[in-house]
Amino acid sequence: MRKNSQNNRANLISKVKQLVGTENVLLAGAEKFEEYCKDMAGYEAIPLMVAQPQNEQQVAVIVKLASQHLTPIVARGAGSSLVGAVVSAGGIILDMQRLNKIIKVDTVNWVAHVQCNVVLDDLNDVLDKLGFFFPPDPASSFIATVGGAINTGAGGFRSVKYGTMRDWVLALRVVLSNGSIVNLGEPLLKNRAGYNLSHLLVGSEGTLGIVVEAWLRIIPKPNTKVHHLLALFSSWEDAGKAIRKIRAQKMIPRLLEFMDREALTGARRELNSKIPVAECALLIDVEETEGTDAKSISNLLLASGSSKVIVARSTAQAEDFLRARALFRLVVNSLSPNALTEDVVVPIDRLVEYLTFLKELSSKYSVKIPVAGHAGDGNVHPHILYDANDPASKKRAERIFEEICRYAIKVGGSVTGEHGVGAQKIRYFREQLAQHGGEEVLPLMRKIKQVFDPKGILNPGKYVDREARSLSPVGSTAPHRSTS
Amino acid sequence: MRKNSQNNRANLISKVKQLVGTENVLLAGAEKFEEYCKDMAGYEAIPLMVAQPQNEQQVAVIVKLASQHLTPIVARGAGSSLVGAVVSAGGIILDMQRLNKIIKVDTVNWVAHVQCNVVLDDLNDVLDKLGFFFPPDPASSFIATVGGAINTGAGGFRSVKYGTMRDWVLALRVVLSNGSIVNLGEPLLKNRAGYNLSHLLVGSEGTLGIVVEAWLRIIPKPNTKVHHLLALFSSWEDAGKAIRKIRAQKMIPRLLEFMDREALTGARRELNSKIPVAECALLIDVEETEGTDAKSISNLLLASGSSKVIVARSTAQAEDFLRARALFRLVVNSLSPNALTEDVVVPIDRLVEYLTFLKELSSKYSVKIPVAGHAGDGNVHPHILYDANDPASKKRAERIFEEICRYAIKVGGSVTGEHGVGAQKIRYFREQLAQHGGEEVLPLMRKIKQVFDPKGILNPGKYVDREARSLSPVGSTAPHRSTS
Repeated sequence: MRKNSQNNRANLISKVKQLVGTENVLLAGAEKFEEYCKDMAGYEAIPLMVAQPQNEQQVAVIVKLASQHLTPIVARGAGSSLVGAVVSAGGIILDMQRLNKIIKVDTVNWVAHVQCNVVLDDLNDVLDKLGFFFPPDPASSFIATVGGAINTGAGGFRSVKYGTMRDWVLALRVVLSNGSIVNLGEPLLKNRAGYNLSHLLVGSEGTLGIVVEAWLRIIPKPNTKVHHLLALFSSWEDAGKAIRKIRAQKMIPRLLEFMDREALTGARRELNSKIPVAECALLIDVEETEGTDAKSISNLLLASGSSKVIVARSTAQAEDFLRARALFRLVVNSLSPNALTEDVVVPIDRLVEYLTFLKELSSKYSVKIPVAGHAGDGNVHPHILYDANDPASKKRAERIFEEICRYAIKVGGSVTGEHGVGAQKIRYFREQLAQHGGEEVLPLMRKIKQVFDPKGILNPGKYVDREARSLSPVGSTAPHRSTS
Repeated sequence: MRKNSQNNRANLISKVKQLVGTENVLLAGAEKFEEYCKDMAGYEAIPLMVAQPQNEQQVAVIVKLASQHLTPIVARGAGSSLVGAVVSAGGIILDMQRLNKIIKVDTVNWVAHVQCNVVLDDLNDVLDKLGFFFPPDPASSFIATVGGAINTGAGGFRSVKYGTMRDWVLALRVVLSNGSIVNLGEPLLKNRAGYNLSHLLVGSEGTLGIVVEAWLRIIPKPNTKVHHLLALFSSWEDAGKAIRKIRAQKMIPRLLEFMDREALTGARRELNSKIPVAECALLIDVEETEGTDAKSISNLLLASGSSKVIVARSTAQAEDFLRARALFRLVVNSLSPNALTEDVVVPIDRLVEYLTFLKELSSKYSVKIPVAGHAGDGNVHPHILYDANDPASKKRAERIFEEICRYAIKVGGSVTGEHGVGAQKIRYFREQLAQHGGEEVLPLMRKIKQVFDPKGILNPGKYVDREARSLSPVGSTAPHRSTS
């Protein structure tokens, strides 16, 4: 970034203004500029400018300019990253909000062709009318964009049955770091022509290219009857028994979520939910099949340690239960000025051990760590509460964060299941690779980064980047709001 | 490969013999050596040696030796490649047959951990007893190995519902070109720690690393009732109408296959099948759901142009119909000494147009092109019959092959859905990338190849390789047997 003198910056700003129009460039001091200085978890960095391109050609030209001026560039959708992946110190933030068209919904080939900034829920609204749906559903789906979800490799509540973004992206249209526009993959269910570059881009957090369009696989809405159940437990051990029993019965629920006492109490208090309180609870959506009905599932849960099972009697009741889980972040926000959101995954047979460890950790440090997550795929979201104005509290949160990551690695898990690495987990993700994959895996990833981005302009200083420092999760870019 | 003098070769052979034992190295002239000189489609090349390592450490040492001696190296499972991906001129063939252990079937986490040479059907036999299954089922599954299927990115009959290998590989253990052993990915349903290298390896045809182990996602065997139907049609147009109708009804069949008259007639003649004959036929397996039973599906097919629908009355009858499709290659073999097997994919709404084009092509060149394939995902397997001893016939087959590939590219399809590129489709796969993806996609792939294999020892001269010539599909390595 040696050329990044004041002149160079002024020159670049002027060229971008000329391209997209002065009114579509925001500089420091401008109204709304601040919105682009942080993500949803509160990671902060001040960009050089925010540019709002009209189309992919303008994106391509801006990327080319960034390359010529050796300036970092990051595309941004809703900014709902939780790991500092969409902020950029001194770089260009590409606000993609104008690339928001659903180009085509193909109901014969079952493919949705969309621009990057289509919001996930908006896509599903359109699909719903046609009898289709797009499964990935992060809690932020009401604002999260397709492009953001691709870069994050997002999951969601339905992952237990339907997987994550990677399973639903067929092909991508991408602006490369030299400004050229390419298609990766084919909008076909099967394609073996070449290396699988489209899925290399999924979860690459803006470090390999700028996604401008996607061809997504869609499927018909299932028409089977679904039962919504809430099972209460007096211990994680009992909840764990139930999860194992569900697996042993070879059920594939549509949704299998867990919440702790804090989440349940908070939902009643903050969300006016009618959800009952217990030490922990499982939310389960199961399709009715031969031999499986609400009663049989209910009996199975009671037999495996549940103290009470409620079968939702109405859509409203089912929605009330789900809201308690989906809006868990609001509960967390009400408990503390700051919270560190974790996103570890552990093998399902280690889930109870892991949740028990979290409770012990909470006692050991006398810090509340409310937790909820996806029991069906072992994805756990502990929230470490702390006060950013209290250095001792920050320090403690950092230590807990470290223990949480390292224990996940130790039991064969991952430090991130669906939020990504960003600036948040550089250190621990590297430890995971070294311990589970081998020392040579990170260098391989860095070389791939260099192939796509030889000048290092695409979202630099994060993720696999050679220059990346191991940022403290509770540093100057500390998150002050949590979500999951 | 400048060091590849006679001395260098003798030296390398001696070192490998010392490592794995003389009895585990086959050289030209040895009994069985010839088996390793071709694949199932008849692509031929004479390797320097065949080595049978005992374990991954021996694989790693041999790869290191290959690197030091700048000698090509290719791992081989059953050798059932149809595109020349597992033969190597002057290289080391690693016969992986001893790496054939099922290491663990984890029925809580639903993961099978296997060595590379486990045969797909053998894995499913073990899983079946535990109530699980592994969906990818290429027609060669009775011999095809997990490692081969990963490298091929194999599909199969169940792809329409369950996707291809890529959807079922969680993590891989791989020997890199420098001889180090790494794990790529995690055996977890969700993992966002790092670039998705495991799925970059799926379908990489041995050009990026040697897969020694895999962690595969497994799922419970479905317990829903399935109806097996055969629908006969007097034209592709009518069959096409039925396929569209099935899509419009938003059915997701377990299996949706098509066969032409040649396939049906041949099945009766060569396989003693009782399958009836028509211009074309669809094989359909549908799960019974609310509102869907054998009668309703049957009515739907009759209403959309089928001249006759047979609902299989017994497992034996259903199996007889499926055999006709699964053993199509035996029918083809009976028709001609040689056949070129194609593996194009077209968008489902272009399938009938494409099949009609194939019939016209057959008339235009007066060459039989029997065809069957996967209607559910648009994957078409035409077989161009020819006589390798007749230069004019060979030339004609080559021209037809070219037209078949180019028309698939023209309608937005792919030149390969599940067989891969290998030596067979280098030219056309490049045309596809250039026309659909952009000129920069192949260079990107080549650079990734260089990252993994800077010395170019892993299965060189094929696929994305810089040095690759555009091999004629009917050249000195012409296939003489076909399969699909």
